[in-house]
Amino acid sequence: MPKLFECALNFSEGRRPEVIEALVGAARGAGAQVLDVAPNPDHHRTVLSLVGTAEVVEEAVRAVTAEALQRIDMNAHRGAHPRMGAVDVVPVVPLSEATMDDAVALARRIGARLAREFELPVFLYEEAASRPERRNLAEVRRGEFEGLAERLAQPGWQPDFGPARPHPTGGAVAVGARTFLVAFNVNLGTADVQVARQVARAVRAKSGGLASVKAIGLELAGRHQVQVSMNIVDPFATPLYRAFELVRIEAARYGVPIVGSEIVGLIPMAALAEVARYYLRLEGFGDSQVLESRLWGA
Amino acid sequence: MPKLFECALNFSEGRRPEVIEALVGAARGAGAQVLDVAPNPDHHRTVLSLVGTAEVVEEAVRAVTAEALQRIDMNAHRGAHPRMGAVDVVPVVPLSEATMDDAVALARRIGARLAREFELPVFLYEEAASRPERRNLAEVRRGEFEGLAERLAQPGWQPDFGPARPHPTGGAVAVGARTFLVAFNVNLGTADVQVARQVARAVRAKSGGLASVKAIGLELAGRHQVQVSMNIVDPFATPLYRAFELVRIEAARYGVPIVGSEIVGLIPMAALAEVARYYLRLEGFGDSQVLESRLWGA
Repeated sequence: MPKLFECALNFSEGRRPEVIEALVGAARGAGAQVLDVAPNPDHHRTVLSLVGTAEVVEEAVRAVTAEALQRIDMNAHRGAHPRMGAVDVVPVVPLSEATMDDAVALARRIGARLAREFELPVFLYEEAASRPERRNLAEVRRGEFEGLAERLAQPGWQPDFGPARPHPTGGAVAVGARTFLVAFNVNLGTADVQVARQVARAVRAKSGGLASVKAIGLELAGRHQVQVSMNIVDPFATPLYRAFELVRIEAARYGVPIVGSEIVGLIPMAALAEVARYYLRLEGFGDSQVLESRLWGA
Repeated sequence: MPKLFECALNFSEGRRPEVIEALVGAARGAGAQVLDVAPNPDHHRTVLSLVGTAEVVEEAVRAVTAEALQRIDMNAHRGAHPRMGAVDVVPVVPLSEATMDDAVALARRIGARLAREFELPVFLYEEAASRPERRNLAEVRRGEFEGLAERLAQPGWQPDFGPARPHPTGGAVAVGARTFLVAFNVNLGTADVQVARQVARAVRAKSGGLASVKAIGLELAGRHQVQVSMNIVDPFATPLYRAFELVRIEAARYGVPIVGSEIVGLIPMAALAEVARYYLRLEGFGDSQVLESRLWGA
């Protein structure tokens, strides 16, 4: 099985279908398999999930960037989501046989290439970061496109690759490596959003909860429910069942039950198998016992 | 993802390794992936599990049959297991995107082809049966190879395809469609095998339990535990969590806890996903959200 990588590239266009199609077409033209295209008009942003070998992912990111720089002008871009570039974020995720070291190496190669070919300032983030204060994407993107010239002139904020000035229409790009993230939302049987917020606070890493969980509490308008909306940034370190059971335990102190949950987007098979392993108390169950893994492995 | 099928083809040779290898080689040569080869010398019979698209499975069954008819003479065959042909049973199981209707259609196409190319009488059984009395394989095979000429001459026992006389050395073949079976054992925290037997009785279909569960109670020598050993013959109709929870409930009346479980052999990904769906109360989770299903769909 070859080493494969996922790349959930975020670009700053979520409204014009012809532009989105052109960028997706560029990725396909480079040989990448497109897993998902999720445009958000409010965010004016699209998440393009693609998969391929290191070579294919590198070529696809290059091709999408070339297309984006021709079609997107950040000076005219307004959207609800923070952003600093036409191609805003390029996270590289190791799949199957690939390791995090492989993903970091690929992210650095992509970053160097985008800087060289397009004169884009490139910041490396998360596992690919060159220094601790650049691990957090929100920190890297602080000030957004509009504040970029000033940011790049600050001491300590020279880009990892490329010029210390914004691309005139394309801004800058963050290229990183991370594990596969699972978006997992748990709905609670109350209309009181304060309960969701309290539970989110209890389960997330930064306020004493589970190591790889980010969480916020939201209202679900029209459902008379609230939601603990989580990103599980390492679903192998913190399995879904653990997050689910901790939400249950924390909600119970308010007398509030879990009424449902959802996985947004994709989940690795092994993360799903871990849920079955826990609840069925399975002994010695290997992922290779999943019929389809035999098929896929061939 | 392409529609895939498993076929657990049974042929009447379980002793001569060179013949078994030739038949397995014929399946591989047709492009099928061989999941398992299980020869049984006492039965003088081998179960060959293979997987592929409809086209691949059809070609593989054709190739194995051609080889079997050259190498196996049923007039000289003696074994402990009932049989009526050199290729005795061809069950087609729908996987992943394939439906039971797809499997039935494939079984019929395979049956028609074996009749046409090899002048074999073909009976369709289980989900592919053309009439109710042919659903049960044991009924179709009654009289075995030795009684075949007489059986085929009876009113109501014309084959579904092919001539109403046995192939001189190959007999006849049963081609059917069924769901994937999962072997699922649940271990109980007691040394008293009577508890496992009572629980098995409570959960199995034939004594008032779950529709697609067959179960027996066993001792686990050396572990001071007992086991409810189940075959779930339709894991989509009766999901694993339901069998597990019913074992838990029935064992509780004896004050006995579940201490573990095991899945023997393979389980379809969708059956595993159903476990996660239940325990996490997942809303709207589709099997296509499993990352690997996207990767290998291309």
